[in-house]
Amino acid sequence: MSMSKIPVAVLGATGSVGQRFVQLLEGHPWFRLAEVVASERSAGKPYRTAADWRLETPIPNETGDLKVMDLGAELESTLIFSGLDSSVAGEAEDTYANRGCAVVSNSKNHRMDDDVPLLIPEINADHIDAIEQQRKRRGGKGYIVTNPNCSTVGLAMALAPFERQHGIDTLHVTTMQAISGAGYAGVASYAILDNVIPYISGEEEKIESEPQKILGRWDNGHFVPAEFRTSAQTNRVPTIDGHLMTISLGFRNGKDLRRTFTLDQLIADARSAIDNFEGEPQRLKLPSAPEHPLQYLKELDRPQPRLDRDRGHGMTVSIGRLRPCPLLDLRMVALVHNTIRGAAGAAILNAELLKAKGLL
Amino acid sequence: MSMSKIPVAVLGATGSVGQRFVQLLEGHPWFRLAEVVASERSAGKPYRTAADWRLETPIPNETGDLKVMDLGAELESTLIFSGLDSSVAGEAEDTYANRGCAVVSNSKNHRMDDDVPLLIPEINADHIDAIEQQRKRRGGKGYIVTNPNCSTVGLAMALAPFERQHGIDTLHVTTMQAISGAGYAGVASYAILDNVIPYISGEEEKIESEPQKILGRWDNGHFVPAEFRTSAQTNRVPTIDGHLMTISLGFRNGKDLRRTFTLDQLIADARSAIDNFEGEPQRLKLPSAPEHPLQYLKELDRPQPRLDRDRGHGMTVSIGRLRPCPLLDLRMVALVHNTIRGAAGAAILNAELLKAKGLL
Amino acid sequence: MSMSKIPVAVLGATGSVGQRFVQLLEGHPWFRLAEVVASERSAGKPYRTAADWRLETPIPNETGDLKVMDLGAELESTLIFSGLDSSVAGEAEDTYANRGCAVVSNSKNHRMDDDVPLLIPEINADHIDAIEQQRKRRGGKGYIVTNPNCSTVGLAMALAPFERQHGIDTLHVTTMQAISGAGYAGVASYAILDNVIPYISGEEEKIESEPQKILGRWDNGHFVPAEFRTSAQTNRVPTIDGHLMTISLGFRNGKDLRRTFTLDQLIADARSAIDNFEGEPQRLKLPSAPEHPLQYLKELDRPQPRLDRDRGHGMTVSIGRLRPCPLLDLRMVALVHNTIRGAAGAAILNAELLKAKGLL
Amino acid sequence: MSMSKIPVAVLGATGSVGQRFVQLLEGHPWFRLAEVVASERSAGKPYRTAADWRLETPIPNETGDLKVMDLGAELESTLIFSGLDSSVAGEAEDTYANRGCAVVSNSKNHRMDDDVPLLIPEINADHIDAIEQQRKRRGGKGYIVTNPNCSTVGLAMALAPFERQHGIDTLHVTTMQAISGAGYAGVASYAILDNVIPYISGEEEKIESEPQKILGRWDNGHFVPAEFRTSAQTNRVPTIDGHLMTISLGFRNGKDLRRTFTLDQLIADARSAIDNFEGEPQRLKLPSAPEHPLQYLKELDRPQPRLDRDRGHGMTVSIGRLRPCPLLDLRMVALVHNTIRGAAGAAILNAELLKAKGLL
Repeated sequence: MSMSKIPVAVLGATGSVGQRFVQLLEGHPWFRLAEVVASERSAGKPYRTAADWRLETPIPNETGDLKVMDLGAELESTLIFSGLDSSVAGEAEDTYANRGCAVVSNSKNHRMDDDVPLLIPEINADHIDAIEQQRKRRGGKGYIVTNPNCSTVGLAMALAPFERQHGIDTLHVTTMQAISGAGYAGVASYAILDNVIPYISGEEEKIESEPQKILGRWDNGHFVPAEFRTSAQTNRVPTIDGHLMTISLGFRNGKDLRRTFTLDQLIADARSAIDNFEGEPQRLKLPSAPEHPLQYLKELDRPQPRLDRDRGHGMTVSIGRLRPCPLLDLRMVALVHNTIRGAAGAAILNAELLKAKGLL
Repeated sequence: MSMSKIPVAVLGATGSVGQRFVQLLEGHPWFRLAEVVASERSAGKPYRTAADWRLETPIPNETGDLKVMDLGAELESTLIFSGLDSSVAGEAEDTYANRGCAVVSNSKNHRMDDDVPLLIPEINADHIDAIEQQRKRRGGKGYIVTNPNCSTVGLAMALAPFERQHGIDTLHVTTMQAISGAGYAGVASYAILDNVIPYISGEEEKIESEPQKILGRWDNGHFVPAEFRTSAQTNRVPTIDGHLMTISLGFRNGKDLRRTFTLDQLIADARSAIDNFEGEPQRLKLPSAPEHPLQYLKELDRPQPRLDRDRGHGMTVSIGRLRPCPLLDLRMVALVHNTIRGAAGAAILNAELLKAKGLL
Repeated sequence: MSMSKIPVAVLGATGSVGQRFVQLLEGHPWFRLAEVVASERSAGKPYRTAADWRLETPIPNETGDLKVMDLGAELESTLIFSGLDSSVAGEAEDTYANRGCAVVSNSKNHRMDDDVPLLIPEINADHIDAIEQQRKRRGGKGYIVTNPNCSTVGLAMALAPFERQHGIDTLHVTTMQAISGAGYAGVASYAILDNVIPYISGEEEKIESEPQKILGRWDNGHFVPAEFRTSAQTNRVPTIDGHLMTISLGFRNGKDLRRTFTLDQLIADARSAIDNFEGEPQRLKLPSAPEHPLQYLKELDRPQPRLDRDRGHGMTVSIGRLRPCPLLDLRMVALVHNTIRGAAGAAILNAELLKAKGLL
Repeated sequence: MSMSKIPVAVLGATGSVGQRFVQLLEGHPWFRLAEVVASERSAGKPYRTAADWRLETPIPNETGDLKVMDLGAELESTLIFSGLDSSVAGEAEDTYANRGCAVVSNSKNHRMDDDVPLLIPEINADHIDAIEQQRKRRGGKGYIVTNPNCSTVGLAMALAPFERQHGIDTLHVTTMQAISGAGYAGVASYAILDNVIPYISGEEEKIESEPQKILGRWDNGHFVPAEFRTSAQTNRVPTIDGHLMTISLGFRNGKDLRRTFTLDQLIADARSAIDNFEGEPQRLKLPSAPEHPLQYLKELDRPQPRLDRDRGHGMTVSIGRLRPCPLLDLRMVALVHNTIRGAAGAAILNAELLKAKGLL
């Protein structure tokens, strides 16, 4: 029966994002993990031995027995998930796409390319129209599709109902990001216990640029970014999973809105927009789509990483503390599970969209 | 020899701020801890028994033997430090001030009173001029002086050089606050391990109002607050001591400044203003005054709570990551030791200023 | 359909063990949570309001709407789970048992009573024979059944295969216990962050006495305890769930065994006994019975609380590092989920056994 | 004035133990840090740049400016501290000793060598007599002296008064060790947050063998180890500094002792022996010697790593919970600051002893 599933490969399968891919693909109704690919050091070993498995669920038995293949090897699979480190992702993903594969990547390298969708299927499913143009460039059926940075996913999803309703003008965001965002060995315990590190290399730049592409349009052969401006400050905190962020935002026509509506009306509208937010994954009933992509928590002190990161199997972004901002229009707190909705889960949902749209 | 020191009392001596008072007063060159006061439950017991001592240094021997007095009791001391809980501080502090004592309080109750200084001696030492008016109201020599909320101290000090240089117009701040800020039993470990709590009751209101009083003027019988507007978002993180905050600020004449100076010049000026910042405590060489009330850390990933909170014996506020803000003018990160510069140490420095100015 | 389920009540439903009961009873195939009981302070409120819910899954909807009843109130349910604090459990549980209810308790008060089973169904299911005698004493159908202390469950289960095989003579155990074992507010974060507390009130006494009753016999009207002697040292560590313990044990006939078998044979036998260990819950296929009550982990550095506590839905005790002891016979490490197998899950499994045996 | 101090070098100066050496040598009355040595990767850079400084105090200014030398380079200093990784320590330390230097090492490589003292000056200062024999072997003035493993130091010191009083026969110890024991990058935060790891490579073997050499005698040309047998189980816990351990011990003539004395007498004697314990460092008033090498804490729940590790500037080992053991004779809890008394501080105290004894 699993023979009729689509065989897929995972690049960088032994790393932290790679392990999440392996975990989330176990028992997937459409995809069958057929090949695991990693660096030379692991190649040739059984996955069970090569991966220093760190997740709370056991290694899926069939995957444990797979022999790890060398990056660049010819693959049977034509759907390829990439959890590669950015030092090698750029070239390797191009290679497989040029060979005709659909490469669904979590790596940053191609996110801002001119004809590569930076997908969050609830927001910009129509950006897959760029694939046609990309295929032409590559001269075949292959292409790359990417998902955003782990913090960006949470931010862009939290912003989407506001951008759709009124349009966003300006945005202050401060993140408090979990250690798993840096990979297993990324943050030494001596560095982070009883501590906060107010710097994550390259992170603020991504958060200040990716959401505009996501919330923008694919228009007649090129991406037109949304027009808001962002100031992002990023911090590493001693939590295991779940990126929390404080957000303050101003609407494009804020003055008019505040003249037309009371603050209570604006907030009630926003909460209703959050609760009713959905997109293609919900309409298409994609296997990994959460029932509620966004969930508003009305308790004063939520969302909290440990208590709320697993909502919707880690695919729901939680929002709380929606209230007026003394400087801009509204303030709120958002939380995203950084290695599920912010990484492997995001990519799998992207692949499900591609399948549903006939692009695999 | 210690006979010539000024005898002082600590109200709320068994609590977390009270214990810091006891610790910091040990061996103080001017003050001698003569009386410890707490609630009825502790009254009559030796301090050693009444206090569930939690600090890394041992209970000072002489203090351990003091018998805890009941709140409201007649005291020998005329200088009184208050680390009382706000549920009782308001009335008790008034009582002692009306009896003729100088009450130097860490509690929030009287901070915004019309004739009560909200002191950070490096910034607004001249606000002690309000004491004369307060004494008239009370009809005696007694008065109350307060220090700000633990986060506010760090924020106001970080802002002071900017306010002095160019004037601040608007301000976004997100705090990541240590658990000790809530007292010993304030945050359950089950609530905060592997977690962040995006809410601290009453904290945002204090941060949005206290700095304006501090950075304002005492003018002819009333306080004139500084005019900037603030949006504060506060979070509890699993660190033991040290409140870290991200700050984004706009200058009052930002447009002019950016026309006149390059961003690099503005930043270089600001760093120089931070490094050279000092005030009355440094000029008067007060015993608890740090050599540098502000210190700029040039490493990319500093300040960090565990590594930097003890600078200047916990009395120095550390600043880092000064850089342009895409929305306002500048961004930075600041750190304050919340139970030293943000509480007991602040009050002791206030008392030293009062002594030096002949107000004790 | 749920009408045919047995209605049950939970005493102490708002506390940490009580919340686990509520969580684990959601969707239970045999039991329907009909009544929630707590102290006067909560009585009359909807459970949703009364409970400060702290678990990672949401409050079950139907339970949220239940009105909290006052401890001592007449109940519809005749099966009652008790997660009461020991300060009130003793009397309250007697009251309900004397009224004719089956009280399945997690509290310590009646554990060592002469005719009260201290049950771990995989080990001593036959101890339920004591119920008959207890019923006589009470003069009705009601009775109390208890489960052990959270650490004891893990220890007794880890010991069971060894006691069955060769008999245990002596036992050193050091525990590293999670904060949830002390209830939500039990351990202040200021007390435990970056720390270990080498003391848990009353815990060593329980661990040194309960396992003997569990591994002993119900013989002709009284419990005959197993004969081994235990030295227990207990510590609180900054983990959220999962009590880990190092164990060193000597066999009753250790010298003979070491003459007859090599150490490798003893260890291989023990691992096989662990892997094959099962009892009544597995034979009766009770709903909460894990497939493997014990699981041996062969990796050098396991079990670990965060990675292994949820095995078997929190009902499997994990064992690792089985190796010779230079002083006694064998050493090992064991892990138990303290609020599932060590508390609420244990009680529910006990109730399932009682139901299967016709005692409800 | 500092010209008259003895110039010293630190090998492995950029690592975690090396940084502690640098920190503790600042302002040392006898030694002046003249040379810092590290691997090829750091050689040639200023120490400030080469070291990723992680301690709470700033880099000493003069040391920051030192140019890092390559391991193996000719050194001006004849007193050399080694904080090298064991992968290179063995050969490098031999090289410098054979060149005529006094090498005072924290590394494990030469600890068990036949003529190398494994020193804790309070316990076995006379072991330095082995140096004469070692010098003969090397054919010059150079030699190596070592300090024990970080856990061993705490254990051996806690045992010393008992071994001196009555002689120890058997010993069960379970450690809960801080992350700094593994070096800065040794324990990933993802591995240890909300977790305990019940395995530390090679640690149990050291704890089971080193204390016997330390508490034994140097007798006529060879070391005669003490005769007790040890069972050690080691765990990594999420604390920053401070190794805590539970200890259960039996006396050599336990039966006789228990016949002659009551348990209360044995315990009172032991507490008195702990409080009065001292050795050569105290008699010679060595600069790094704590006034009390051991300190008994009478509170029920002490020692605790965060509260007690810094006693005696990190050079005092704290002991608590002395009480009878149901299986052996006594039980207790001990705590050692693993990077001060357990590493760099231990080596510096060793060097001070050597200086006082005329061996430098």
